[in-house]
Amino acid sequence: MNASPVLEIINTGTELLFGSVVNTHLPYLGQQLFSIGLRVQRQVTVPDGALIRDAIAEARERSDILIVTGGLGPTSDDLTREIVAELTGRELQYHEEIFAPIRERFERRGIKLTDRIKRQAYVPNGAMVLVNHFGTAPGLYLSADGRFPHLFLLPGPPREMCPMFEQSVLPILRGLVGKVDLSAGVFRVVGLGESGIEELISSDLDKIPGLELGYCARLGEVDVRLIGDHASVEQASEIVSNHLGAYIISQDSQSLEEVVVQELTAAQATVATAESCTGGLLANRLTNVPGASAVFLEGCVTYSNEAKTRTLGVPAELISRVGAVSAEVAQAMAEGVRIRAGATYGLATTGIAGPDGGTPEKPVGTVFVALATPTDTTVEKLFYPSDRESFKQSVTQHLLDDLRLQISSRRSEVRSQ
Amino acid sequence: MNASPVLEIINTGTELLFGSVVNTHLPYLGQQLFSIGLRVQRQVTVPDGALIRDAIAEARERSDILIVTGGLGPTSDDLTREIVAELTGRELQYHEEIFAPIRERFERRGIKLTDRIKRQAYVPNGAMVLVNHFGTAPGLYLSADGRFPHLFLLPGPPREMCPMFEQSVLPILRGLVGKVDLSAGVFRVVGLGESGIEELISSDLDKIPGLELGYCARLGEVDVRLIGDHASVEQASEIVSNHLGAYIISQDSQSLEEVVVQELTAAQATVATAESCTGGLLANRLTNVPGASAVFLEGCVTYSNEAKTRTLGVPAELISRVGAVSAEVAQAMAEGVRIRAGATYGLATTGIAGPDGGTPEKPVGTVFVALATPTDTTVEKLFYPSDRESFKQSVTQHLLDDLRLQISSRRSEVRSQ
Repeated sequence: MNASPVLEIINTGTELLFGSVVNTHLPYLGQQLFSIGLRVQRQVTVPDGALIRDAIAEARERSDILIVTGGLGPTSDDLTREIVAELTGRELQYHEEIFAPIRERFERRGIKLTDRIKRQAYVPNGAMVLVNHFGTAPGLYLSADGRFPHLFLLPGPPREMCPMFEQSVLPILRGLVGKVDLSAGVFRVVGLGESGIEELISSDLDKIPGLELGYCARLGEVDVRLIGDHASVEQASEIVSNHLGAYIISQDSQSLEEVVVQELTAAQATVATAESCTGGLLANRLTNVPGASAVFLEGCVTYSNEAKTRTLGVPAELISRVGAVSAEVAQAMAEGVRIRAGATYGLATTGIAGPDGGTPEKPVGTVFVALATPTDTTVEKLFYPSDRESFKQSVTQHLLDDLRLQISSRRSEVRSQ
Repeated sequence: MNASPVLEIINTGTELLFGSVVNTHLPYLGQQLFSIGLRVQRQVTVPDGALIRDAIAEARERSDILIVTGGLGPTSDDLTREIVAELTGRELQYHEEIFAPIRERFERRGIKLTDRIKRQAYVPNGAMVLVNHFGTAPGLYLSADGRFPHLFLLPGPPREMCPMFEQSVLPILRGLVGKVDLSAGVFRVVGLGESGIEELISSDLDKIPGLELGYCARLGEVDVRLIGDHASVEQASEIVSNHLGAYIISQDSQSLEEVVVQELTAAQATVATAESCTGGLLANRLTNVPGASAVFLEGCVTYSNEAKTRTLGVPAELISRVGAVSAEVAQAMAEGVRIRAGATYGLATTGIAGPDGGTPEKPVGTVFVALATPTDTTVEKLFYPSDRESFKQSVTQHLLDDLRLQISSRRSEVRSQ
């Protein structure tokens, strides 16, 4: 096979075109394939049923490797197996060793077996069966035969398809394509926008021949993507590291909360949270990280003023004097929860998530965030006018990044002493 | 145009094939198009650059309407405009009225204008310009001319594409296709699995000719989708409503938390949460709903045993006797937070999210959830062995549904008195 084979993917499924389901196969397969030096040239989505035939017939003219997902199940609109047998001129043969475990499973659960279910045990002559550890329909691999590209048929449900891909398909593909000099680097950046990043790095990176530079911006973070041969990506990575410095939170797609929990653990520090407008998202993000229980002591979601006073010790008088959305209350919340939980750091948010509750002085999107440490408390006023969930995401992103920078500066202080 | 025109979508973008970005255009467009009776026949993803040409050339042979997203921006790999001009044999003409606002915006922000940026002001002869209120590159519409289908070129960024689609493209499409008798119903079901639902409804629904029945399962919920003409969908909807009853949480894709906040508001009731293993997700889901502040009083994320005692009043003696992951502690947490916050309902979770912390008696995935009401407290033991985030999602889903059923049964009690 040549050095950069043409690889195409066909995803079958009416639900993908109807809009009720997002195609997660493509990003998964794109990343997996890239890891062995393969890139997807084209992807096609067709509904369940006979249109699968056209898509496969067209793709075979163009491609060296073709991956088809879906349409292997037991129901009447699952036609991929039959279509491929017909197109490749192979007979379908019944395989008892495929059906036996299916029969056993159904009998154990007392479900009646129908002829439909038996269809999954038919295999086009000469195809290799790829075992499905998480469902009934096996995958199939037909090696290229001059008229047809290498063809992989995989089940539609992601929890069946993904393990099968890693266990059975990747090893076959590695054997087919050999070693490819293709490398990638992804830098996750927080605290700088896309254009700000481009200004800092693009002129230097443009000088590296064959390097592909890409950006992917999400709320409060940007991934800088470098693709090229190993030498180019290494050279480019050094430039990116030097120019973006502390704005880079990870190089292995770690999330900000993962980095924060890791830094807290390394520093033997702990954290507690007091949230008003972010309503528990801060605690939720931190506790999504395995091992968070060692560093996250307590979280308080104090939506009402009474709760702020009762739980965090924010003086009722202060709230009525300066308002719940204020620098003073943010500070008192952060300090209150820090002391209450006996934590190294206390984080607090108080603001107006909207859609209601804004005023001319404090419009929807206004928020105060505070970070209390053993020695002092920093309060910032931020403004994120947007929908409720984006607001919560942006605010927690900002405050978690404040904490990340705080921990690392404290660590370097300790080191330099 | 005939009653069911062939409609295809081409999404351009290297990042979609590389796997770093999920294609959200397709589900968005699929749903929008369906709302006016159109269905997507095929979708193709191609990388930025010259391969866009092949995809458009092939799609024009098959389709009556073709929508292309991406490749209209200022950079060198944005080629859609030029390719379409070439394929349709139209000249590109400069439009000062497109460039003027771009120039003004750049000058205001002090950014240097380049020739690249000017490319966005070129339009294939005779194309209609679709205004972009959220970015620089306008969309374009070329009406069908015998050799070419109706062609829409839309910008790639979703926050530019989606408003443009609704404001400019939908009205044009409505004019083209007229009125179509196509209807859909989506029932969101919680508390039953896909196969359980199928057993209850499929035999009755199979009798309705032309009805298309689909399922989409997510963690802790299943959407039942009915597609057909208005009469069939109406008939089918009645069957689904009768057979699934209280398992149906909404018919307009409302989330469980939205339904819960709505029910609490209607019942003039309030809630407070005490979370251990779900780490704030319960509070976060509830506070994602606009208006949650009226019914959500306080949330406590008590990860440590000390916090459970200090904040919720769970006796330390109880924890050391039966363990933090126990029915007794779940009950004490729910009752503790209910009283503390002065809420109608108290919710609590305590369990082992994993990956560590499991024991033979209480393996990872074990969890106790409790719901305290003014009159009593219900505790359930559940088992969700899975990754950490799925575990948190499943547990909160179960408990929020308990609360939903509790409120509605209480309401019907009140009504029947």
